[in-house]
Amino acid sequence: MNEIRIFSPATVANVACGFDVLGFCLDSVGDEMVIRKVERKGIHITNIEGFDLPYKAEENVAGVSALAMYDAIDVDYGFEIEIYKNIKPGSGIGSSAASAVGSVFGMNELIGRPFNKTQLTEFAIKGEALASKCEHADNLAPAMFGGFTLVKSISPLEILEIPSPQDLYATIIHPQIEIKTSEARAILPKEVALSNAITQWANFGSLIHGLHTSDYGLIQRSLNDVIVEPYRSQLIPHYNEVKQAVISAGALGAGISGSGPSIFSLSQGLETAEKVKDAMSQVYANTDIDFDIHVTKINTSGIKVLN
Amino acid sequence: MNEIRIFSPATVANVACGFDVLGFCLDSVGDEMVIRKVERKGIHITNIEGFDLPYKAEENVAGVSALAMYDAIDVDYGFEIEIYKNIKPGSGIGSSAASAVGSVFGMNELIGRPFNKTQLTEFAIKGEALASKCEHADNLAPAMFGGFTLVKSISPLEILEIPSPQDLYATIIHPQIEIKTSEARAILPKEVALSNAITQWANFGSLIHGLHTSDYGLIQRSLNDVIVEPYRSQLIPHYNEVKQAVISAGALGAGISGSGPSIFSLSQGLETAEKVKDAMSQVYANTDIDFDIHVTKINTSGIKVLN
Repeated sequence: MNEIRIFSPATVANVACGFDVLGFCLDSVGDEMVIRKVERKGIHITNIEGFDLPYKAEENVAGVSALAMYDAIDVDYGFEIEIYKNIKPGSGIGSSAASAVGSVFGMNELIGRPFNKTQLTEFAIKGEALASKCEHADNLAPAMFGGFTLVKSISPLEILEIPSPQDLYATIIHPQIEIKTSEARAILPKEVALSNAITQWANFGSLIHGLHTSDYGLIQRSLNDVIVEPYRSQLIPHYNEVKQAVISAGALGAGISGSGPSIFSLSQGLETAEKVKDAMSQVYANTDIDFDIHVTKINTSGIKVLN
Repeated sequence: MNEIRIFSPATVANVACGFDVLGFCLDSVGDEMVIRKVERKGIHITNIEGFDLPYKAEENVAGVSALAMYDAIDVDYGFEIEIYKNIKPGSGIGSSAASAVGSVFGMNELIGRPFNKTQLTEFAIKGEALASKCEHADNLAPAMFGGFTLVKSISPLEILEIPSPQDLYATIIHPQIEIKTSEARAILPKEVALSNAITQWANFGSLIHGLHTSDYGLIQRSLNDVIVEPYRSQLIPHYNEVKQAVISAGALGAGISGSGPSIFSLSQGLETAEKVKDAMSQVYANTDIDFDIHVTKINTSGIKVLN
């Protein structure tokens, strides 16, 4: 096999009380990529469709992670990468992570899988760092492993796969405004009240327990973020209205996806997730802000081969 | 049945990264209590052995929780309580919680179990508050339910039962020094670094996952407290030596039990827990501080009827 086509999924990071550590993987939203083994040594990006991104490997997220892996293998051939991008860069649902994970996953398949998923994520971190200016795996981990992932630590990289209840659906709205990552970072406090931190880890531990036991009521009562949301939600117009609307529509909870501007919501059952979609849409339909919206099952297997 | 004898276990609260929310129950350390239905209305403490504690129900932890429950039932009889106390008050392994839980659990058994364990814990919170001057269920929950418990919230009271891996043992040392609860509280910072809070909830979520999956390695890597231990450990002489010694002896981790001065350690297997006992003992044997030490399986059923 010299060529492979893969689907690299969008993801949600910073899942409410799991800020900076918990993410999950989307099913019907993602990029496609073609990875090809070629005689010409090195990493060559030969086609990009969907969005305007750099072709030079050193300047492209998928290229940088591919180069990190290429440096670690000793081969007398190279790889071509084609990127068919559906995930809008800057939307907050892991666009750069999908690219970073895609190239190394595809290359690994072509050369007989010498690396496990954690090792592949290590390479992908280098690509992700090009986009986000820091090494993190918040979106990489769910894209690579699927389901819910907890990044326990970055150094050494330790990723835990948390069970995903069968009937869990996500609704994600992307209001088309720009939030600069630097601004989303700068707005966070350096210190937080100990009492709030305790509430946050009580909720986070409860959420992990709720995911293990498929206790939707507990998931609902745990999906709160008392630390980050009060700050970052200020950067997203109509955030509080959206949140109220989705809760009224029956969602288990909602939060900021990544550093925004996308807002995610989790629901038990497709029917509720569709109602949540209507509720979210309604809020922005009454404004002059354009938006995309997706309803998707949780993707429990992550990145996959298409052909 | 007009009389019941019960075993009310000692407990460890503030389990490392689960500060203020996670506790577990000990198997071979605890109080015994006799609860008796009598014609004389009201709550009457008729015998206390082991330690010098007040007989007046309103001034005794077991009495106060019993009175809270007594007020909620409409009966034309009363209860006598005998307390055979083995858990030293102030040792940090839930002495007051054992008393508070014991009276209401025993009374509930005698009158046909009208209350569930969460409701009984609500009554016990009133008793515990007499001792600790605030309403919390950190020790009550594991004493009542057994195993590991996560107190998600106090109001409303929500207690989660977290699975306990089969081969988990605790070693607990009680160095006989006094730590005032007020001092243990005053030493805590009001604010903590966001980065530390994130580390704490990453560890706590990982610990909950590790308990669910019986992953002892993960439990080991998660049993860290970067928030509270650096402060409170200053109040316990030789704390860092004990911690180093138990880790060298093969323990999964260690931490301050409750607000101290007891130090708990968790191990995989009885053999390691016994080695940890030797290591802990050695540290204090070289000082002029007296100590008690216990090795015990995790008690997965909690408070129980003896006769």
